[in-house]
Amino acid sequence: MEYKKTTDNTVKRGAKRAQYNKEEIHKILDKCNVCYIAFMFGGKPFVQPINYGRKGEKIYIHGSLQNRMTSAILNSKEVCLNVTILDGMLLTRSAFHHSVNYRSVVIFGEPHELLENEDKLIGLKAIINHFVPDRWNHCRKPNKNELKATRVIAIDIINASAKIKNAPPEDNPEDLDLDFWAGTIPVKTICEMPVAEEKIDKSIPLPKHIKTFYESY
Amino acid sequence: MEYKKTTDNTVKRGAKRAQYNKEEIHKILDKCNVCYIAFMFGGKPFVQPINYGRKGEKIYIHGSLQNRMTSAILNSKEVCLNVTILDGMLLTRSAFHHSVNYRSVVIFGEPHELLENEDKLIGLKAIINHFVPDRWNHCRKPNKNELKATRVIAIDIINASAKIKNAPPEDNPEDLDLDFWAGTIPVKTICEMPVAEEKIDKSIPLPKHIKTFYESY
Repeated sequence: MEYKKTTDNTVKRGAKRAQYNKEEIHKILDKCNVCYIAFMFGGKPFVQPINYGRKGEKIYIHGSLQNRMTSAILNSKEVCLNVTILDGMLLTRSAFHHSVNYRSVVIFGEPHELLENEDKLIGLKAIINHFVPDRWNHCRKPNKNELKATRVIAIDIINASAKIKNAPPEDNPEDLDLDFWAGTIPVKTICEMPVAEEKIDKSIPLPKHIKTFYESY
Repeated sequence: MEYKKTTDNTVKRGAKRAQYNKEEIHKILDKCNVCYIAFMFGGKPFVQPINYGRKGEKIYIHGSLQNRMTSAILNSKEVCLNVTILDGMLLTRSAFHHSVNYRSVVIFGEPHELLENEDKLIGLKAIINHFVPDRWNHCRKPNKNELKATRVIAIDIINASAKIKNAPPEDNPEDLDLDFWAGTIPVKTICEMPVAEEKIDKSIPLPKHIKTFYESY
């Protein structure tokens, strides 16, 4: 299944690197921790990072009721968000062809506030399980007061595109004999060994969902 | 020196984590590879990732002359950009208090196209040396045709703020006896060993600026 190509999401520069396949786009979304969300506030564009979760064609975010961003997002009616994974830096002999390998997704969506506790819990579960898979089953669920204090927004994905580059550095043929180093510097985001909070009994081994997350990150 | 606090850049949620100190903000900017830039296009907010450089109170970006984003940025007159470093994931016993450690900067700036080759070269040098320090001295500089095909934009920083969280996970006192694991999962972005491009003589050791970058990243 593909997202429909419209004026908004059709990649023009580097079109051969574009992807509209839903599965590919979901995979990149599910790999990232933080999305960057653009919205209008006072007639001006703003961008802020936020944690999120995804379920099907919905992206969930949350914030406190007083949060300027979530209020502005709901007023905006439409939002654009991006997630990007930097995979490598491409160094060429010429300054001009320096580039990066990356996987990047742009989403255009319609934000809706979730008002029923049942719906809010679906959103929060998606966010917590996006954070660390299966975490929802290993923590205390939000109580009524916490749900009341939390705004949960579902962003319906209207359309989306991905741009993926995975290539070696590429110089012009006439530059290949220049005496400059060229190559790829791979970049990677990793987890270090989880550190238990100070009141946790250190003799207890890491729970399975944390160990699995750490080992597969 | 501090950035002036205005309606745009004053952090309201988590104000105790806010920073307006120029040196701190520059340090975070200089550590990131990619910024997320919000701009208006067709009356709607967009966000896209882009590589950048910084020199003093200017952030430089570049793109091809046909690039929709750089055209839209110049039309927008004002842009907002964000960089964020994720330092750790904070897992609490309650779903409600899950959080992250991070360093994040929001910049509000005024974009200007650089039209003189001399100015464009200053911008491109900042971008290339931001990519890998001292790289500008170890590659072929852009020629006249390349400069002609490249749009270079200087974004004057009008104001900015940082938000920094570096704390352990924190549960409500009444949740401390719950039988759930809590702790911090540190997150880090690393470089792997640089890989020379296929035509590079592999017997030549890595040049010093690449080795230094790799070891200090």
